[in-house]
Amino acid sequence: MDDTIYVIGHKSPDTDSICSAIAYANLKTELGMKNVRPARLGEPNLETKFVLNYFKADVPELLEDGIGKRLILVDHNEISQTIDGIDDADIVEVIDHHKIGDIQTPNPIFFHAEPIGSTATIIADFYFDEGIELEKDIAGILLASIISDTVIFKSPTCTGKDRDIAIKLANMLGIEIEKFGTEMFKAKADLASKSAHEILVTDFKEFDFSGKKVGIGQIEVMDEEEVQKKRKEILDEMERLRNERGLVMITLMITNIMKEASELLFVGEKKELFEKAFDAKVENDSIYLEGVMSRKKQVVPPLETTFLHA
Amino acid sequence: MDDTIYVIGHKSPDTDSICSAIAYANLKTELGMKNVRPARLGEPNLETKFVLNYFKADVPELLEDGIGKRLILVDHNEISQTIDGIDDADIVEVIDHHKIGDIQTPNPIFFHAEPIGSTATIIADFYFDEGIELEKDIAGILLASIISDTVIFKSPTCTGKDRDIAIKLANMLGIEIEKFGTEMFKAKADLASKSAHEILVTDFKEFDFSGKKVGIGQIEVMDEEEVQKKRKEILDEMERLRNERGLVMITLMITNIMKEASELLFVGEKKELFEKAFDAKVENDSIYLEGVMSRKKQVVPPLETTFLHA
Repeated sequence: MDDTIYVIGHKSPDTDSICSAIAYANLKTELGMKNVRPARLGEPNLETKFVLNYFKADVPELLEDGIGKRLILVDHNEISQTIDGIDDADIVEVIDHHKIGDIQTPNPIFFHAEPIGSTATIIADFYFDEGIELEKDIAGILLASIISDTVIFKSPTCTGKDRDIAIKLANMLGIEIEKFGTEMFKAKADLASKSAHEILVTDFKEFDFSGKKVGIGQIEVMDEEEVQKKRKEILDEMERLRNERGLVMITLMITNIMKEASELLFVGEKKELFEKAFDAKVENDSIYLEGVMSRKKQVVPPLETTFLHA
Repeated sequence: MDDTIYVIGHKSPDTDSICSAIAYANLKTELGMKNVRPARLGEPNLETKFVLNYFKADVPELLEDGIGKRLILVDHNEISQTIDGIDDADIVEVIDHHKIGDIQTPNPIFFHAEPIGSTATIIADFYFDEGIELEKDIAGILLASIISDTVIFKSPTCTGKDRDIAIKLANMLGIEIEKFGTEMFKAKADLASKSAHEILVTDFKEFDFSGKKVGIGQIEVMDEEEVQKKRKEILDEMERLRNERGLVMITLMITNIMKEASELLFVGEKKELFEKAFDAKVENDSIYLEGVMSRKKQVVPPLETTFLHA
């Protein structure tokens, strides 16, 4: 077995998955772990590229499969979201802020999950606890991850701890959170240059709800003009991807950060379950939900519960 | 839903399961959580009774089922080891030192596991981290749990962290670890007064290995005289329990603390898998393994792996 330990976030990586992998690999190295390296399971999105470039951090290497590899999972703990070949990998640690999923291990390991806004918050807290000095690049990408995952503290998943640690990091770096966050979301929301496929897979996750596979994507925008122009192509792409992957349904959350609301585009079977989950009727292939910004906290649980009782 | 939060260890509770529940409920209360109470899933064993009595701690209440209850799980994270009705309970937190099992949650929660000797070590560390003063009864039962689970630091699961925290607690209390540990294990090993059934279920856990249910019990002794006198009755009782619960096999580890070795009594089907797992032949219904003291680290993993590849 390769003696490298790879720190990986989830498939279709977002900023928290890429940056938490970089920061945690750095922390473990500082704490004396040998041969630990960050890696990624897919192309960084526009926001992440902006963040890595802004703080002069390197893009981690792409890891194709986990066979025979030692892995630390950050920002996920579901088999469907992790690297291919996970059954033949050795999971060394897990650091996450999502619901407890279906990862099992043959031996005891370090597994730490907290119900907070971002994995980066947990990792920054570990640095403070261990008294390890945060270099500027690491502090910067951790701050960006918290801002990204909590949508500048507006997401219902955001806790006091996320806010406190983000402010501490921002003060260390002399960064204005609102200003930097707006710049970052603009970089992400450069939808004009993206194809319907790229928009859909930017942040796309598959879930297993009582044996049914469901895809849930999310795209965050400052305004909806560009994405609505591509509505038809996106719906076609959703249907294509659904058939390709054998999913029961796909929903894409178009989350408007300014309005603090999401439109959920829908394709697939079991429309009645989807409608029941959100107590709303699908019209023009979507439902509109005021106040909904978090896939993890506001979209996954009602769908999971509805499928469970179906 | 009942607004009490019950902190529970595993079925067939050992000292770590009972005492970690008491200590963690106390810590959460100190940290401001309301209505949090320790509970247990079965009768405390002789060792645990000795410990609770020694440090003047109350025996937690018995909890019959988890239906409609809010639960914090300590010292386990497997459905087969937790309270009946777990599917209709709300799991609020998990603190453990075993392999990652099959507990899943609909929402993010605090889940913390470390690959160390006892759950009590993790909880004592939380007290120190949070700067919460440890009362003598809590410090005592945490110390006893570490000594119990690590067999006075002799178990291969024991880490430097277990040892450091146990010594810190012992110094606070003015307790000699070796002397107290020997007294405690004598209390536990009072086998003359126990029936074969009581010996078997003292510390008995069920596992699901690739769809096959396997029971693994453990009894720790200073000398084997009493247990060997009851060998025939114990084997009969193992066969009876196996049929009653529909298990493929049962093994009972008779762990000799002085010799640092275990005899594994065996009843059931798939003897060839059992022999393959430990690379030894079953003779007179058992195999003898030098240096084996930990179910979790030395008995569960080889059996799990062998069943996986069967």
